[in-house]
Amino acid sequence: MTYKLYYWTGIQGRGEFVRLCLEDAGADYVDVAREEGDDVMQPWLNGDHEGPLPFAPPFLTSGRLVIAQVANILHYLGPRHGLVPSSESRQLYAHQLELTITDLVAEVHDTHHPVASGLYYEDQKPEAKRRSADFRSSRIPKYLSYFEKAVERGGGTHPLREHSYVDLSLFQVLAGLDYAFPKAMKAMSPKIPRLRALAERVAKRPHIAAYLASGRRLPFNESGIFRHYAELDA
Amino acid sequence: MTYKLYYWTGIQGRGEFVRLCLEDAGADYVDVAREEGDDVMQPWLNGDHEGPLPFAPPFLTSGRLVIAQVANILHYLGPRHGLVPSSESRQLYAHQLELTITDLVAEVHDTHHPVASGLYYEDQKPEAKRRSADFRSSRIPKYLSYFEKAVERGGGTHPLREHSYVDLSLFQVLAGLDYAFPKAMKAMSPKIPRLRALAERVAKRPHIAAYLASGRRLPFNESGIFRHYAELDA
Repeated sequence: MTYKLYYWTGIQGRGEFVRLCLEDAGADYVDVAREEGDDVMQPWLNGDHEGPLPFAPPFLTSGRLVIAQVANILHYLGPRHGLVPSSESRQLYAHQLELTITDLVAEVHDTHHPVASGLYYEDQKPEAKRRSADFRSSRIPKYLSYFEKAVERGGGTHPLREHSYVDLSLFQVLAGLDYAFPKAMKAMSPKIPRLRALAERVAKRPHIAAYLASGRRLPFNESGIFRHYAELDA
Repeated sequence: MTYKLYYWTGIQGRGEFVRLCLEDAGADYVDVAREEGDDVMQPWLNGDHEGPLPFAPPFLTSGRLVIAQVANILHYLGPRHGLVPSSESRQLYAHQLELTITDLVAEVHDTHHPVASGLYYEDQKPEAKRRSADFRSSRIPKYLSYFEKAVERGGGTHPLREHSYVDLSLFQVLAGLDYAFPKAMKAMSPKIPRLRALAERVAKRPHIAAYLASGRRLPFNESGIFRHYAELDA
């Protein structure tokens, strides 16, 4: 069975967390909008299809299932591809960690869009500067120290004691933050050795390494969630 | 077995979504911090306990399980108390809807804290005014029209064709928005008749009616997520 992933073209965005999971799993999938254009998603968002109504991309179809929200998609894919431990308690914990990553990603978005998603960055620059200063000094340390501690508690290598979709998402978070806030992340790095090692290991996983070297991995850019604006970095 | 809910005292906050579920289910639970004080949560957040590490309250213990993140908690409780349909496809959809409510709640928080959670509202009033204007004109209509449509697609009464934890959370969202943005919500109301009817039905459910009339239901206030500041309403 072929999964169908629906997400905006031209950016990594939230879709990338799902792509990394599908790629690592070696799953058969189509990145539908990249084949057919962004318009292909509109009927789904309009409610022209049967079944669940997605609020926004990404969403994934798996046979007749329609699944939206990144963490929900990973919670679905994880057990099917050995990307989460099998016990209920670990799956609940994996999902909690992923939801905390979701919160962090929303905060990253708001560093450049603190007033309104519908306005340009240029229309909210003073607010973005204030929000980013707090994000760098308070939120990056709070979130990354938390995840560092979670890896430490998991035995030092993985938060869940084994490889999981959470590792893939943590890799993506570090990659994105390194791109958007290189100075702040350079200052943070000595405090997160376990997370850094985890991200390096993820990048070397054969399927992930092949993906990162492929044209399917788009570069970060200033239309995505992780954006580099020098004035928002330290 | 008695559930233990851990959440800040003095506010409804995110904990209220869990309370409504436990109350509607008639579940046996202790609201631990209300009995023992907020300090009781600190060892959990410090990682002094075994098992999963919560990032923030609310978190729930169920026997040896420790579950954090509101939507994760409801996803766990739902099937155990008949508060979500039994099929996988419906549970995935319920969870997606709940995660979309989570996103909305985070945006509500940011109307009064658009720069930094760690600063007072008084230190970010101009930014709050701009963000709230967009929230009223763009985000309330976008989210509530989406949920209205979801109820319509579910047959007109519930998004999932039957009562679920999502209905309880939608009730809470409307109650909170009515408190925080009464003018904006008055303008919105004619466009969301199904959501309004759903919220009225939830309020009349015997366990919920009893809860709302009890001292356990704290009033909304300006320390919580849904805050009324006249200058942020239309």
